[in-house]
Amino acid sequence: MSRIAYVNGRYVPHRLAGVHVEDRGYQFADGVYEVIAVEGGRLIDLAPHLRRLARSLAALSIAPPMSEAALRHVLAEVVRRNRVRRGIAYLQVTRGVAPRSHGFPEGIKPSLVVTARATPAAARAGIAEGCAVVTVPDIRWKRCDIKSVALLPNVLAKQQARDAGAFEAVQVDADGFVTEGSAANVWIVTGDGVLVTRAADHAILDGVTRRAVMALAAEAGMKSEERPFTVAEAKDAAEVFLTGTTALVTPVIRIDGDPVGDGKPGPFARRLLAAYGARDAAAGEAR
Amino acid sequence: MSRIAYVNGRYVPHRLAGVHVEDRGYQFADGVYEVIAVEGGRLIDLAPHLRRLARSLAALSIAPPMSEAALRHVLAEVVRRNRVRRGIAYLQVTRGVAPRSHGFPEGIKPSLVVTARATPAAARAGIAEGCAVVTVPDIRWKRCDIKSVALLPNVLAKQQARDAGAFEAVQVDADGFVTEGSAANVWIVTGDGVLVTRAADHAILDGVTRRAVMALAAEAGMKSEERPFTVAEAKDAAEVFLTGTTALVTPVIRIDGDPVGDGKPGPFARRLLAAYGARDAAAGEAR
Repeated sequence: MSRIAYVNGRYVPHRLAGVHVEDRGYQFADGVYEVIAVEGGRLIDLAPHLRRLARSLAALSIAPPMSEAALRHVLAEVVRRNRVRRGIAYLQVTRGVAPRSHGFPEGIKPSLVVTARATPAAARAGIAEGCAVVTVPDIRWKRCDIKSVALLPNVLAKQQARDAGAFEAVQVDADGFVTEGSAANVWIVTGDGVLVTRAADHAILDGVTRRAVMALAAEAGMKSEERPFTVAEAKDAAEVFLTGTTALVTPVIRIDGDPVGDGKPGPFARRLLAAYGARDAAAGEAR
Repeated sequence: MSRIAYVNGRYVPHRLAGVHVEDRGYQFADGVYEVIAVEGGRLIDLAPHLRRLARSLAALSIAPPMSEAALRHVLAEVVRRNRVRRGIAYLQVTRGVAPRSHGFPEGIKPSLVVTARATPAAARAGIAEGCAVVTVPDIRWKRCDIKSVALLPNVLAKQQARDAGAFEAVQVDADGFVTEGSAANVWIVTGDGVLVTRAADHAILDGVTRRAVMALAAEAGMKSEERPFTVAEAKDAAEVFLTGTTALVTPVIRIDGDPVGDGKPGPFARRLLAAYGARDAAAGEAR
């Protein structure tokens, strides 16, 4: 658990970390966030996370809460104060506090909250074993490229998966194409050994891990394509896997109860997970 | 402004009214709300608001934070402590506080926040003059019948209206049919004098004021239909108006810059606004 949180200019004990009830994050989901992996006490892929944060804020016309340099300092300080070696940092920016009214209020300052916590070793170890997913209709809004805290549909999808005994929900658009998971991007490997993941349109979040895995795949000489794919294609695929800051590269071994391939983690996902782990470990040690 | 807020069991000065940063309302928009009119110090249409609250909570599998009797007491007490005669009470229930993870946490208690504030007399007086609206694509999720705090798209729509010099955004679905405003239901009056408003499907909130106006229209011998209508129909309509807890019955006098009818509040909207006001005043005095 996070022991020290940064909240609007102060480092406070986690249990005292509060925001006002009229913070627009609470009343309107009027804010954005990032989850950043920590490895060896270092923030992994911080630059692309901060670029995406800037992009999400700009899309909502929320001013940056502080300079990028200051934000880097706060993130590093929260990680340090919580003594996180391997885990995640969580950062949330909202439009700020104002009497409740839908439109953007004038003259308020954005709120910034940063927390950090260690990842239990068991959670990490379990990833290589693969997971089961279920498919659910994607009922989210049309700007899922903005990493907003309006995550209620993702919450419901994740719980639907859990209720079905699965780990993740794979969301499917009205045309039958896979969009993404509740907290991860989705990939398939075709029978010809080509990696396929949906292009980063407005229907999905352009995952930082997604980009990293794309680069690792290219380095390893794997072919990849960005295009939509159907649930049927996923069910017939040689492999399916998820990517995300906490999912890393998680092989999918069952979809809607049916095995993917031979029902075991496949060689592409295993290789990418290993490469991703090695990359993080190297970044964590590079100091 | 609300001077005293109720937050999780305590009445606290408004400036100290806080929730934890890991309240799921803040991190996931995992909560619901109601806005209830206050007239003569009394909560108007409290029963249907509490019924809808129960329905929203059930849809998200959030337990009621307290009995209905206790909730009625808290609402009345917040109105009393803030000395609100005419205004609104705001009530928000979230799933509660837990370490961040998408699925429903076990064993946590829902959070409850209640505030109340007076409505400036000027805001109320302006309603009869009518308002301008703009049409915008409805980019929201597919369960707008749940009154959730995942209001970011509504915020963006409202701001888009404001940027265009209008009061409200009328949202339009992919088929060209009007869904609703960012914080109000939308009605038209046809050339034959028939009131039309969209049926309460998953695309709109079933407004308490919508229901009340439907009843008032019937009492006044007006015909009404629940069916979808297009933007073109709205632009050609004899009248257009909005209904909502804060909108009451607001005539729409311009759509996308073009006048509705003769560009003045029409007789149907004026009559319904008067009837609605009289009904609230009577309810406010009935003690």
